[in-house]
Amino acid sequence: MEPALGIIAGSGPLPAQVARAAEAAGQRVFIIGLEGHAEPDRLAPFPHAFLRFGGAVRILSLLKEQNCRDLVLVGPVKRPSFRDLRPDGEGLKLLARIGKAAFMGDDGLLKAVIRVLGEEGFRVRGAHEILGGLVGRAGLMTRTVPDDQAKSDIQRGIAVCRALGVADVGQGCVVQAGIVLAVEAVEGTDAMLGRCGGLAWPGPGGILVKLVKPGQERRADLPTIGEQTVRGAIAAGLRGIAFEAGGTLIVERESMVAAADAAGFFVIGLGPEALGARTTTGRN
Amino acid sequence: MEPALGIIAGSGPLPAQVARAAEAAGQRVFIIGLEGHAEPDRLAPFPHAFLRFGGAVRILSLLKEQNCRDLVLVGPVKRPSFRDLRPDGEGLKLLARIGKAAFMGDDGLLKAVIRVLGEEGFRVRGAHEILGGLVGRAGLMTRTVPDDQAKSDIQRGIAVCRALGVADVGQGCVVQAGIVLAVEAVEGTDAMLGRCGGLAWPGPGGILVKLVKPGQERRADLPTIGEQTVRGAIAAGLRGIAFEAGGTLIVERESMVAAADAAGFFVIGLGPEALGARTTTGRN
Repeated sequence: MEPALGIIAGSGPLPAQVARAAEAAGQRVFIIGLEGHAEPDRLAPFPHAFLRFGGAVRILSLLKEQNCRDLVLVGPVKRPSFRDLRPDGEGLKLLARIGKAAFMGDDGLLKAVIRVLGEEGFRVRGAHEILGGLVGRAGLMTRTVPDDQAKSDIQRGIAVCRALGVADVGQGCVVQAGIVLAVEAVEGTDAMLGRCGGLAWPGPGGILVKLVKPGQERRADLPTIGEQTVRGAIAAGLRGIAFEAGGTLIVERESMVAAADAAGFFVIGLGPEALGARTTTGRN
Repeated sequence: MEPALGIIAGSGPLPAQVARAAEAAGQRVFIIGLEGHAEPDRLAPFPHAFLRFGGAVRILSLLKEQNCRDLVLVGPVKRPSFRDLRPDGEGLKLLARIGKAAFMGDDGLLKAVIRVLGEEGFRVRGAHEILGGLVGRAGLMTRTVPDDQAKSDIQRGIAVCRALGVADVGQGCVVQAGIVLAVEAVEGTDAMLGRCGGLAWPGPGGILVKLVKPGQERRADLPTIGEQTVRGAIAAGLRGIAFEAGGTLIVERESMVAAADAAGFFVIGLGPEALGARTTTGRN
């Protein structure tokens, strides 16, 4: 059988976009949708199967049957996903190989999963390698420009994200007039934005800052923003998003920018210069 | 008029406890309850007035009328409190003296307020100086003992709190099996606990870790735990609280310990040894 790109798919539009890009480049694809995470409608146009995350052994054997050597892990898999794990007997052995790393923070877990996939003979590639055009670049994407207060809030957000990243926690925070309104842990960006409305002060709204963690496993967990992120931020009274250029996937770019422009909201990519000397861009 | 201890009161039981302790030591007290924060029932037994936070000039002149030289700022003042600020004309001048510090994070603001109060001739004292008996000590307060997983989660929580504290954000986080479920910013501990129920994994519950920020202004914003904290943590599926000994106020100690013991929940004070070499205890 002709080799295929294997896609292990969580939720959102990215898995289908990876599949489409690979097919457009003449490559066969096979998607494994993780039950409870991947969205059937989005996977329908492609050869696929739905499996539980806990059925790890079945996932691996199906990928081998389909002659997938290259794998992409893409699309958020929301915690708590442990309920879905219910590992089968062989899955428990695999889990033992992942070992303590499963309890070491998000990034530790992902790195261990990628290591085990490598031991099984797969090569894990980053979604951004296939979706090069979706990686956000440095510079302003919107008509609205950050003012001085916004720039100062972005700098404070960068400092907070770096402190968090060192502790392998989250990738985002919201800053308004120097005050850190919220810090992201496992709840995810959308949930964090959801609570900011009630915490904000009057006056110019806060800024969402999203960075790549230092040493982050870029092949499986790149920060992603899109129209939904912008709409959530606007609903929470924010006035802008600053993301790490070269390390953030932008989904639904046109509709995201249109939603931002309609609301006088800015979206800006932070390059190495904006991030200062301690940037992690391009390291991993 | 005989000198009095001035108490600028936020919410909760602490302002009345400070007043009671001062009176028991033979000192006259006068409480200024911040409107929308201080609770009338709790202040009723003591000489007091209610004023807006924004009426700073009236607060200062009343404190001078009452011959208060020593001041205690005590009891949480929940953000967003800016709506209550609406500073009067003279208040705006005071705010200008606080200046940019008002936008520098919680601790920067408090330090600036204390500085301005000093310039006005007041001496700001820490609530813990008057409520010495309420400062939590190192060691276990409950019958339930933290197991190895809990100890490991406490260590991870310490690392996260330190990283956050350096960025002058929050004082707490919740860790379950090595995963940081939540990080505290301006929403406060109770709100953070409120969202943990939905984020927890099955298995042994998470641990709330609360530390003093490095360089924290201990005279105005000491971490505080009590029965409400324990009940909130139990409701969120947690199984213990670890706090920084010597830097945390324990309110309603007996009912807190009773609630914890009834639920097989632990509360432990972390001394310099548990906190490692980089402890901030006793520095400020």
